[in-house]
Amino acid sequence: MSSITLYPTSNFTFGTKEAEPQSETSATERLNVLRSYYETSGMRRAVDAVFLVHEAKHPHVLLLQIGHKFFKLPGGYLKPGEDEVEGLQKRLNELFGRTGTDGSSSTMFDWNVGECIGTWWRPNFDNYTYPYLAPHVSRPKEQKKIFLVHLPEHRELSVPANLQLVAVPLLEFYNNPATYGAQLAGLPVCLSRFSYSFAD
Amino acid sequence: MSSITLYPTSNFTFGTKEAEPQSETSATERLNVLRSYYETSGMRRAVDAVFLVHEAKHPHVLLLQIGHKFFKLPGGYLKPGEDEVEGLQKRLNELFGRTGTDGSSSTMFDWNVGECIGTWWRPNFDNYTYPYLAPHVSRPKEQKKIFLVHLPEHRELSVPANLQLVAVPLLEFYNNPATYGAQLAGLPVCLSRFSYSFAD
Repeated sequence: MSSITLYPTSNFTFGTKEAEPQSETSATERLNVLRSYYETSGMRRAVDAVFLVHEAKHPHVLLLQIGHKFFKLPGGYLKPGEDEVEGLQKRLNELFGRTGTDGSSSTMFDWNVGECIGTWWRPNFDNYTYPYLAPHVSRPKEQKKIFLVHLPEHRELSVPANLQLVAVPLLEFYNNPATYGAQLAGLPVCLSRFSYSFAD
Repeated sequence: MSSITLYPTSNFTFGTKEAEPQSETSATERLNVLRSYYETSGMRRAVDAVFLVHEAKHPHVLLLQIGHKFFKLPGGYLKPGEDEVEGLQKRLNELFGRTGTDGSSSTMFDWNVGECIGTWWRPNFDNYTYPYLAPHVSRPKEQKKIFLVHLPEHRELSVPANLQLVAVPLLEFYNNPATYGAQLAGLPVCLSRFSYSFAD
């Protein structure tokens, strides 16, 4: 069984940097962006990262919280033709790296992108995604792959000011699609094949 | 991404052999057996197999059906100290092999046990299992590991007369714990990291 070493949440410091512009705000707007992407470039591809840490020897997942209620995994969309792993590394540096301005130093990380733990498909221009392609779906509109990204023992992450990075216990997600959505609610099942060692 | 070759359900023939004695019949009886196992040998270990086939290029899972309603994956319990993979191969031969009697020929298979796709824990002597160990659970009563078992192009399986082997479409399980239970309902999510190639 694959064993993964997890470090405590407190090994990671979350600094603040200026807010990311949030280009897509409403669900309708997001679907319009997807539709126009699909017309020019075909199926859109997204890649997300699961960062695991531990508290009291229980695995926790790092989520971005937007406002009071909305949670998502760190990640983003790939450009047409962009490699999944390289693209995910870029999206993670856009989120958590620090670009030097006015001669200040910039910080970009080497992200250790590991196993793909799940794939979700969006068959139509709507909010439903599924962990399989149904037989009648020949032209899915979006594919999202979720990767485990292994954290080193320590890391200082710069988090955009409009987002919060929070550590959510794995057991919180289970049977809880109402709060987290189906993709996050499925994480305990996706991750159950691993065993964990909890470092200090 | 790991790609798996699936063959059509019709490549597999399901013969009938004499019924397996079903030692544990009621839920109460099953829990009593677990309790007495735990007292003498500690946590009980179970291993199950996911056999994937396809119909119309959609993955299907082979399930054992008992009576009209109850479905389960093929598999069983390990003996104390028994190796997981060897134990699963033995349980599968007990279910699907044919032991020669009165000079007739016996058939035992080499099962190609692949990736572990999930682990479920039973913290207490009751019917609830979870895909993680909660922090307060120091002495789980049972652990079940689910393995992908890769089928060859053709195989003739002998199925005990009191059981039926049925191929259930992957999409049937999704969001359907009421019919299949949480473990089977989680299969689409567990399996979403694979891509499939559908052979004839």
